[in-house]
Amino acid sequence: MYRTVTCGELRLADVAKTVTLAGWVQRIRKMGGMTFIDLRDRYGITQLAFNQGTEAFEQANNLGREYVLQVVGKVIERQSKNPQLPTGEIEIEVNQLTILNPALTPPFTIEDESDGGDDLRMKYRYLDLRRSCVRKNLELRHKMAFEVRRYLDEQGFLEVETPVLVNSTPEGARDFVVPSRMNPGMFYALPQSPQTLKQLLMVSGFDRYFQIVKCFRDEDLRADRQPEFTQIDCEMSFVEQEDILQMFEGMSRHLFKAILNIDLPALPRMTWADAMKYYGSDKPDTRFGMTFVELQDIFHAAEAQKAEEERFSVFANAAYIGGICAKGCATYTRKQLDALTEFVRRPQIGAKGLVYARVEEEGTVKSSVDKFYTQDVLQSIAKAMQAEKGDLILILSGDDAMRTRKQLSELRLEMGRQLGLRDPKKFSCLWVIDFPMYEWSDEENRLMAMHHPFTSPKPEDIPLLDTNPAAVRANAYDMVINGVEVGGGSIRIHDAKLQEKIFEILGFTPEQAQAKFGFLMNAFKYGAPPHGGLAYGLDRFVSLFAGLDSIRDCIAFPKNNQGKDVMLGAPGPVDQIQLDELQIDIRKQSQTQL
Amino acid sequence: MYRTVTCGELRLADVAKTVTLAGWVQRIRKMGGMTFIDLRDRYGITQLAFNQGTEAFEQANNLGREYVLQVVGKVIERQSKNPQLPTGEIEIEVNQLTILNPALTPPFTIEDESDGGDDLRMKYRYLDLRRSCVRKNLELRHKMAFEVRRYLDEQGFLEVETPVLVNSTPEGARDFVVPSRMNPGMFYALPQSPQTLKQLLMVSGFDRYFQIVKCFRDEDLRADRQPEFTQIDCEMSFVEQEDILQMFEGMSRHLFKAILNIDLPALPRMTWADAMKYYGSDKPDTRFGMTFVELQDIFHAAEAQKAEEERFSVFANAAYIGGICAKGCATYTRKQLDALTEFVRRPQIGAKGLVYARVEEEGTVKSSVDKFYTQDVLQSIAKAMQAEKGDLILILSGDDAMRTRKQLSELRLEMGRQLGLRDPKKFSCLWVIDFPMYEWSDEENRLMAMHHPFTSPKPEDIPLLDTNPAAVRANAYDMVINGVEVGGGSIRIHDAKLQEKIFEILGFTPEQAQAKFGFLMNAFKYGAPPHGGLAYGLDRFVSLFAGLDSIRDCIAFPKNNQGKDVMLGAPGPVDQIQLDELQIDIRKQSQTQL
Repeated sequence: MYRTVTCGELRLADVAKTVTLAGWVQRIRKMGGMTFIDLRDRYGITQLAFNQGTEAFEQANNLGREYVLQVVGKVIERQSKNPQLPTGEIEIEVNQLTILNPALTPPFTIEDESDGGDDLRMKYRYLDLRRSCVRKNLELRHKMAFEVRRYLDEQGFLEVETPVLVNSTPEGARDFVVPSRMNPGMFYALPQSPQTLKQLLMVSGFDRYFQIVKCFRDEDLRADRQPEFTQIDCEMSFVEQEDILQMFEGMSRHLFKAILNIDLPALPRMTWADAMKYYGSDKPDTRFGMTFVELQDIFHAAEAQKAEEERFSVFANAAYIGGICAKGCATYTRKQLDALTEFVRRPQIGAKGLVYARVEEEGTVKSSVDKFYTQDVLQSIAKAMQAEKGDLILILSGDDAMRTRKQLSELRLEMGRQLGLRDPKKFSCLWVIDFPMYEWSDEENRLMAMHHPFTSPKPEDIPLLDTNPAAVRANAYDMVINGVEVGGGSIRIHDAKLQEKIFEILGFTPEQAQAKFGFLMNAFKYGAPPHGGLAYGLDRFVSLFAGLDSIRDCIAFPKNNQGKDVMLGAPGPVDQIQLDELQIDIRKQSQTQL
Repeated sequence: MYRTVTCGELRLADVAKTVTLAGWVQRIRKMGGMTFIDLRDRYGITQLAFNQGTEAFEQANNLGREYVLQVVGKVIERQSKNPQLPTGEIEIEVNQLTILNPALTPPFTIEDESDGGDDLRMKYRYLDLRRSCVRKNLELRHKMAFEVRRYLDEQGFLEVETPVLVNSTPEGARDFVVPSRMNPGMFYALPQSPQTLKQLLMVSGFDRYFQIVKCFRDEDLRADRQPEFTQIDCEMSFVEQEDILQMFEGMSRHLFKAILNIDLPALPRMTWADAMKYYGSDKPDTRFGMTFVELQDIFHAAEAQKAEEERFSVFANAAYIGGICAKGCATYTRKQLDALTEFVRRPQIGAKGLVYARVEEEGTVKSSVDKFYTQDVLQSIAKAMQAEKGDLILILSGDDAMRTRKQLSELRLEMGRQLGLRDPKKFSCLWVIDFPMYEWSDEENRLMAMHHPFTSPKPEDIPLLDTNPAAVRANAYDMVINGVEVGGGSIRIHDAKLQEKIFEILGFTPEQAQAKFGFLMNAFKYGAPPHGGLAYGLDRFVSLFAGLDSIRDCIAFPKNNQGKDVMLGAPGPVDQIQLDELQIDIRKQSQTQL
């Protein structure tokens, strides 16, 4: 070893010891007859002191940032201690300095607040990773993955590696494909998830399976998506929904305790219908209230009292009118209210306008629609909203209840942000259950499986499959933390007849079903146990624990929005000889783009 | 849960309890008024007893193999106990039977000794995995991976996930490539190993990294190779070779103890030169001796005494003559000896012939080359070989010492096999160290890096780089168990000047070196610490612990020799729309092959 101790471990008790340290130059300070160097490694920072007149002093004065050093010296007590630093009570009086490697000046500062822009830091990601704020995210990731494994191992789960070179999956996102040299013209696909394989492992009797596994989706990328991402993938046999919820509530509780030392209370369960009704989202941020109140009955009753020409047409014709109450925000200025109106009118949100009402100090309600409604009506609204003096009521309306709820959800989240109610250090965790089996696809003009076609319906809703399939609820569940869906899954169908009916409702003929899903259906004929499972997005789970906005910061070498790793230069061109071996050609039009 | 207990846990102490079990029908036996069913799950087998006259009895008589059942019954003591079975003292008197799923008759028997051939079992791998001998390998794999993580975590290693979609690596095996839709004409490559990325993580100051990670090589497959395989990949900073050897010897010791309850003694270290000299292999099977003795001096001296025409030309002109002594094999028949001669003459081995000598009971040596040598010479041979009465000496010779040693190594392993000296339950573990830096490539007509071009030379051999590079030894090491290289690695070069010299010796101009390895060399300019590491092949490591001949049996869903997963049907065709999106074409000649 090039060192006897790390840069993070020396304390006052070590004074007078002779030690050898190795690390990087974080900072050099020259102060008269002394030079001080902060030496950094993964474990911390230790101050080195060099006295004028020594050889080491001369060497130290010629070093640059990020040089790699080995020093031998004596631990001494510092004169001016640094309480911010675990090693802040001591320093090293250096006798001997060896430059293990010089360093060019890095293109940005290696500090928590760096002067490097995103692109530059990504190009030199290996330097960006030296910043302790970035490294800590990856340390957290290691620890979370390890604790997940520890918990699941203790619960009898087996981690089974499933293949990366698989077959193309029907009904999913776009696959990445890999041309096969040994089987020209044929392609492997990279798995979007090991869903099929984990169900096969249940058919095999593995009973409890998990895997922390890379998955791949060739989609156009958004800020929180990566072409490759990591799932904690789990499946259990001979279970019902309650067993899964208990098992993985236990896992979350273990993680919160082991990593953050937080005692997570029992997870509340909210039906999908309630989540949509009160939060306008299937992943409600329950760190704060501000739940929706439906106001269409009050407004429609008021409109019914009025003559046609006096009606407020926006509300009079709206299928849905919903409000949220922002506590203490009656002081919002015109400018702030205009900004909120602009916010909901953004194309990504798409509301037509925003109605507000303030509860004034003397108890009257002042609203942007004063001229359409009596104070009585406005008071009823305030009462329905449980609004008190000083509160601000924000109201959206629309013809499509679901769409309007989603708009109101965005407004609610924005108000939560403005009011500081979304503290990343506070956690609110819940299960959203009873998802619908199907959602209507305008694009495909048919019902689509909301989760996937192997998800089982609630037994009590099975009769509805024949009469009103859109109303059927699934044994499907999501774990939601702070408005983020960290995991989700379902109890699968293990009954062949029920599976056939589900395919029928999805619009597949028996032949189409066989062509698309025959492989798994055949396996099920050989004795499939009742089973179910779920998968967590590890990247999101870690980001959440780290309080990050983007999953990118908890991935060592992430890709940018064009799917590029600018550090590695991937993707890149390949040799003609490789194309010849694979018997494929790149089309000319794309070659000219190169 | 569909059960209160598993099929592996009931004992005599549980008698009189009412339990619910779920699992698969392993076997049905009808005996007069009773029917017995062996119910199987991952945890074991429990006998179910059905009494004539009950409803459950009628149901039980109509079940088939592999039906999935749920039963409720009372635990009773068995009349005829089965000591082979952990649950063999009890059975369940079944009151209630529910068929959770029927099953088609499986295409082969779900027994340790199955009647299914390899191809059939691979096509129905999900049924093959029900066989407890196969499942146990995957349980072992889970346990080994978990214990590796536990050990490395305790030693301060961080598991960091590196990307799967990377860039093509120079100087390796053939890459699998993935066309990029977002960057038409460009390709990602799947990593052959995270070598470059783990070295970058050292530049980043991660200090101790590991990852259990999938790697990919598009090579023509042999029995013990798979296109995707799993590495335990490790790297450390501020270390010398001794630190790495200690750390990973510790890991092996932990695994042997935790998994097999074996106290592994300190690992012997053998230089590569000695391994070649005494075993003819850089991965010697040291479970048995039978080490090589070089005999050219004795034979050449004998030849020198003789007239030209009386010489045994085969030995007289051989650059290398080596023998092994097979204890107690003087009784080998002519037929056995002929078979050994045939063995070494096989094209895969390529020896021209085999010379043998027996030490007879009365002490004389009888040899296949009696007519060329006096009894005195033969006695000297026997003495050099430390052969005793009843032993058999087997001798190979050739012009190329290395090639002949490799042939003799194959013969030694075959004799070890015949003599039962290669017990898979016995383990002999060692380090092979001091590998040469370079090996000559006839194909490339230049020296090639034996490990990879970032491997550092032994400091004391650096002067030889200028005078005799082929003699330079590397800081490279392999861990060998029972003749299998389970892991290997090296201390890397962190000095830019030394790296340049190494590239020069490998025949690269500075421009070529920059083009091929510039990416990592540039990173090294920003302060690279001394570092080194190694990687284990997890598949091989598990096979070894499981006593398997092939790595295939410890992989859940392996591919066959054509790189196909016959169960999944991968690789397969892709839609034209996907090719259009990727802007690639399959060549016509390969399309006609489809």
